Amino acid sequence: MSEHELPVKMKAAVMTKPGHIIIEDQPVPRPSSNEVLIKVMAVGVCGSDVHYFEHGRIGRFVVEKPIILGHECAGIIVAVGADVARVKVGERVAIEPGVTCGRCTACKEGRYNLCPEVQFLATPPVDGAFVQYMVIREDMVFPIPDHLTFEEAAMNEPFSVGIHAARRSKLAPGTTLAIMGMGPVGLMAVAAAKSFGVETIIVTDLEEVRLEAARRMGATHTINVRHEDALAVIREITEGIGVDTAWETAGNPKALQSALYSLRRGGKLAIVGLPAQDEIAINVPFIADNEVDIYGIFRYANTYPAGVAFLSSGQHDVMSLITDRYPLEETQQAMERALHNKSGSLKVMVYPNGM
Amino acid sequence: MSEHELPVKMKAAVMTKPGHIIIEDQPVPRPSSNEVLIKVMAVGVCGSDVHYFEHGRIGRFVVEKPIILGHECAGIIVAVGADVARVKVGERVAIEPGVTCGRCTACKEGRYNLCPEVQFLATPPVDGAFVQYMVIREDMVFPIPDHLTFEEAAMNEPFSVGIHAARRSKLAPGTTLAIMGMGPVGLMAVAAAKSFGVETIIVTDLEEVRLEAARRMGATHTINVRHEDALAVIREITEGIGVDTAWETAGNPKALQSALYSLRRGGKLAIVGLPAQDEIAINVPFIADNEVDIYGIFRYANTYPAGVAFLSSGQHDVMSLITDRYPLEETQQAMERALHNKSGSLKVMVYPNGM
Amino acid sequence: MSEHELPVKMKAAVMTKPGHIIIEDQPVPRPSSNEVLIKVMAVGVCGSDVHYFEHGRIGRFVVEKPIILGHECAGIIVAVGADVARVKVGERVAIEPGVTCGRCTACKEGRYNLCPEVQFLATPPVDGAFVQYMVIREDMVFPIPDHLTFEEAAMNEPFSVGIHAARRSKLAPGTTLAIMGMGPVGLMAVAAAKSFGVETIIVTDLEEVRLEAARRMGATHTINVRHEDALAVIREITEGIGVDTAWETAGNPKALQSALYSLRRGGKLAIVGLPAQDEIAINVPFIADNEVDIYGIFRYANTYPAGVAFLSSGQHDVMSLITDRYPLEETQQAMERALHNKSGSLKVMVYPNGM
Amino acid sequence: MSEHELPVKMKAAVMTKPGHIIIEDQPVPRPSSNEVLIKVMAVGVCGSDVHYFEHGRIGRFVVEKPIILGHECAGIIVAVGADVARVKVGERVAIEPGVTCGRCTACKEGRYNLCPEVQFLATPPVDGAFVQYMVIREDMVFPIPDHLTFEEAAMNEPFSVGIHAARRSKLAPGTTLAIMGMGPVGLMAVAAAKSFGVETIIVTDLEEVRLEAARRMGATHTINVRHEDALAVIREITEGIGVDTAWETAGNPKALQSALYSLRRGGKLAIVGLPAQDEIAINVPFIADNEVDIYGIFRYANTYPAGVAFLSSGQHDVMSLITDRYPLEETQQAMERALHNKSGSLKVMVYPNGM
Repeated sequence: MSEHELPVKMKAAVMTKPGHIIIEDQPVPRPSSNEVLIKVMAVGVCGSDVHYFEHGRIGRFVVEKPIILGHECAGIIVAVGADVARVKVGERVAIEPGVTCGRCTACKEGRYNLCPEVQFLATPPVDGAFVQYMVIREDMVFPIPDHLTFEEAAMNEPFSVGIHAARRSKLAPGTTLAIMGMGPVGLMAVAAAKSFGVETIIVTDLEEVRLEAARRMGATHTINVRHEDALAVIREITEGIGVDTAWETAGNPKALQSALYSLRRGGKLAIVGLPAQDEIAINVPFIADNEVDIYGIFRYANTYPAGVAFLSSGQHDVMSLITDRYPLEETQQAMERALHNKSGSLKVMVYPNGM
Repeated sequence: MSEHELPVKMKAAVMTKPGHIIIEDQPVPRPSSNEVLIKVMAVGVCGSDVHYFEHGRIGRFVVEKPIILGHECAGIIVAVGADVARVKVGERVAIEPGVTCGRCTACKEGRYNLCPEVQFLATPPVDGAFVQYMVIREDMVFPIPDHLTFEEAAMNEPFSVGIHAARRSKLAPGTTLAIMGMGPVGLMAVAAAKSFGVETIIVTDLEEVRLEAARRMGATHTINVRHEDALAVIREITEGIGVDTAWETAGNPKALQSALYSLRRGGKLAIVGLPAQDEIAINVPFIADNEVDIYGIFRYANTYPAGVAFLSSGQHDVMSLITDRYPLEETQQAMERALHNKSGSLKVMVYPNGM
Repeated sequence: MSEHELPVKMKAAVMTKPGHIIIEDQPVPRPSSNEVLIKVMAVGVCGSDVHYFEHGRIGRFVVEKPIILGHECAGIIVAVGADVARVKVGERVAIEPGVTCGRCTACKEGRYNLCPEVQFLATPPVDGAFVQYMVIREDMVFPIPDHLTFEEAAMNEPFSVGIHAARRSKLAPGTTLAIMGMGPVGLMAVAAAKSFGVETIIVTDLEEVRLEAARRMGATHTINVRHEDALAVIREITEGIGVDTAWETAGNPKALQSALYSLRRGGKLAIVGLPAQDEIAINVPFIADNEVDIYGIFRYANTYPAGVAFLSSGQHDVMSLITDRYPLEETQQAMERALHNKSGSLKVMVYPNGM
Repeated sequence: MSEHELPVKMKAAVMTKPGHIIIEDQPVPRPSSNEVLIKVMAVGVCGSDVHYFEHGRIGRFVVEKPIILGHECAGIIVAVGADVARVKVGERVAIEPGVTCGRCTACKEGRYNLCPEVQFLATPPVDGAFVQYMVIREDMVFPIPDHLTFEEAAMNEPFSVGIHAARRSKLAPGTTLAIMGMGPVGLMAVAAAKSFGVETIIVTDLEEVRLEAARRMGATHTINVRHEDALAVIREITEGIGVDTAWETAGNPKALQSALYSLRRGGKLAIVGLPAQDEIAINVPFIADNEVDIYGIFRYANTYPAGVAFLSSGQHDVMSLITDRYPLEETQQAMERALHNKSGSLKVMVYPNGM
């Protein structure tokens, strides 16, 4: 598609106020010299999108004017800026949604997820990916092989959280791991753990359908905390020792305490889920006495190439996690589906350019 | 001193019940083949000794029969077992007080402080160092140079906690550090931080005398939390960014929260002090959102050679921390001094073989 | 089998001089208090065994009196010493062949493979595993599940070298890896890399049969350096960038240079193979200019549990590497097979208690 | 100084061909939106400047047209671009000379010294700092305190190499270190090691004047390799064990071999100096058998803030290393001094705006 063949108008799903998304015509943006124009093919609905849809804010980030949500996305490059050299028109790509400055201390130290100047899709006031076309800096897109679907490429975003947690937790073959909470982030965390060669992956949730999905992703032991005592089961599996590493992905205080207590001495805890409340009672002497490491996890850095490589390896049945599909025009319904019927559905996907 | 010249009887300070220490005659022990016999010259009173003296227990460790306390110790080798090759009679040594098994997973991985079979001096039911002579495995003693005093060598024990915290926190030149609590462990932590090349060491306490001692040890900024808002001062010193690393050494819940909030994004928190209560309210979203690392600190491993090297370098005015001195016969008084008059005194030292 | 039912005599394959192995009757040893007695079921022939068989020495280790070779071994526990608690009679176990002191600096730091006092099977003057029964300290044996064969358990020894190299090289999903040399160590290194989640494993050798075996173990690209230019092929596979990590396992100077040049900037090189000659010409400016890391690999530490877990996962077709089988009585022939016919055979296995 | 008061013309020292530097009038550059204009106050002559001056090339970097050399520099900000927020006019700054892209894999991973698109001062075809005024991106300048001289700030460049080597070598209190070669890089490496808390710093050189300077910087043991056997002395100092870490800074093959052999088992070798010849004979079995780590060192990353903090602490007598001073007009003489009289002089400094 040459420049003059590009469409000039497109559809965008704009949240005008919390809970209310309309479809608008907008001009198709044009890439500046180091940007690419993407025809957006698949966008997953993330828990943070749902949170903005319901509450209009997440912590210090407040929706103060109409915003386009969506940041788990993939598409096709349809135009490139004059200086773009790394990718070319026609390439199918996964899109990393946080454009960082490259010049602050965090960026220079390789922890660009902590960049104070990041422009992150669908985080107020930055618009997101529930649109037909979007521009982004060329270094944020990662070509995918032909056999990888756009949905799988979009799933590289939550997968990246798992990869980042795996790296920060120094996951490796031989590690025993417990993951609390089997929402989409938890499920992709299972996939990440499997990718890192972990053979013992114990997971917990309240919903059988999610535990089933976890088994498909590679969980070796599932615990339904509605009926079972997670700690007792974990102790039994680990012959009384406890796991090397535990991840809390649900933002649930009880799950967090459970994760901590499930550890062996010298174990590691990653906090992936964001609790709704600020203060949670934590057994601090337990942390000191057992020399526990705790790692806060905020997004990810340098995960996209590894994620694409792994999703391309065909080991993960990521497509089975996508339970609900909507065209862009029904973004409102997609959000409501994600909001109201959490147990039946796993990942809701929106297709801005046809399903 | 040849074997037949060794004394056969010695004095020992035995705690027969909490709060009650008597002086007993005991036989001088004989070293087995891989042990050395130490004439104990200086023993520091540690917070854990005081805790056993006052409460008769620390967590799962309960004093159930008479015990000898004291584990911060140094002395002279007066006899060696048949297979001892690393040290010899006459050497002045610092004594590492935890004899580990060398064969469990923790030991083999280099984290021997987590050895489940450790025999740690003055931790029930293992007797400690408030005695004139003691035996210990040869690899637990570390020769010191002539110019290092026995008191300084004994202080290598709390110093080791600081070194261990420094290593786990990856302290290095350029790090900005806040240390909460200037008891003996906090003060030696300042010395450790200085040893690791940290130029910005901000400390807090309630007592001016401790803040003064902290300045002697290398603190560059002191905050008296009786009058000052620690967070506000730390923000000012760090130009609004927060510190790279914070250590809580006092076991104080408020200090712990303060330590957490004092961090920059991506900062590191070490929990060195053991709070009296189990559950402490912690801002978990803060940990995740700022990608904080938290490290529990339990004793130390592989710190003694580095500690001796540093104390020998003459950079640290450790002697000035020793405010109270008692002969072995007055161990009861030494314990009471440490228990009742915390603000006036810093480190209480007992001399089993003359002052 | 109770103590009084244990056999009193056994067969042992003793190398009386280089190239000459006889079968002798020896008394069955009795375990001391912390040892176990093993009925040896499978022993792999290692390159170092072959080297002692041919040359009577490896570097500073010289065969000066009759010695029993063999250190890649597995068996059944048939008796235990009085203090043994970790394992019990009847358990099938993989045997870690290096008994370390647990008390030197290297041991205490978790690098026990560097212990100067290690007693390593089949390293002069320590006898090895070409015997029907052997004793070893209880912490050196690792129970294996029923479905794991003794041969696979014996292969945990060369597998451990790969795991150790993987850890030192910080192998992880997303890494691109080249492994030079597909002898048994190289082949097990491929298995280790696969275990660590590496998706791009490029291997080189001169023999097609070994490259085929490498593909079975998980190699994604094979290069026959008889016909192909390894560097050119690697550059092509990595789109001109070079690999993240390269391992030399053959002890071949040209392969080592090739491994170095195959790296991207900031890449890592592990030296696993031991060259016959001491001095090799290395491009030192290349190392500095590209900020390469080089890691010498000497045996392994803390790999056995992870190795057993991985071999048990059923991902690796290790049995297919065992091409030649001999009873203990034919240890001489087994050694000659390994020595003379390297290309046709991969791993030669000896069965001391029946095949 | 407001924009209209800025000078329009300046002097620049241009190397028109190897060995030949002239002084030219050039227009003072104007900063773009994210750049600052620096009045250059002090510029050190680096070995690489001398190499370009003598040979017209370093490896793949070839001087093909007139170039301005000099990259160890400091100055005063005299104007800032419209978007500059981090620094302001009047600030005295150290200048990091490599402007990196912030978007490639190396930059994003925190190893920006390996950025393939870096614009490095005085590396062809990029002009350097032997000028009265220069522009650079705002994130490359680091304010210095009033009491730090411009010369000291310029020395932060070679100091950074030492800090980078220290980090890659994981230098810490307790490390024993040998540094081969006491040119300016070696001398600043001593300062870096001291900053990291290393108490045992053994250095070698051929020139007594340099060894004397090393003692001023913190070396604890000096070896004149003209008269002494470095290995023998190091073995003696370390009681036969060898050092934990060795750095080669001279680019000398014999010193490199000496550095390698000086290591204890499990030791670390950093290659800082660039040898003139490509291939150097290295004892590879020694590397494997002793499980040595080798780290190539190429420039530095994220070192400037730590460097400035350390130089500001007043521990280092950096000014004593500056033995020769020239005004910009005599840059030719400065280069010749650095080229021809290596033993007498240590660091040659050029002052573009008056001495």
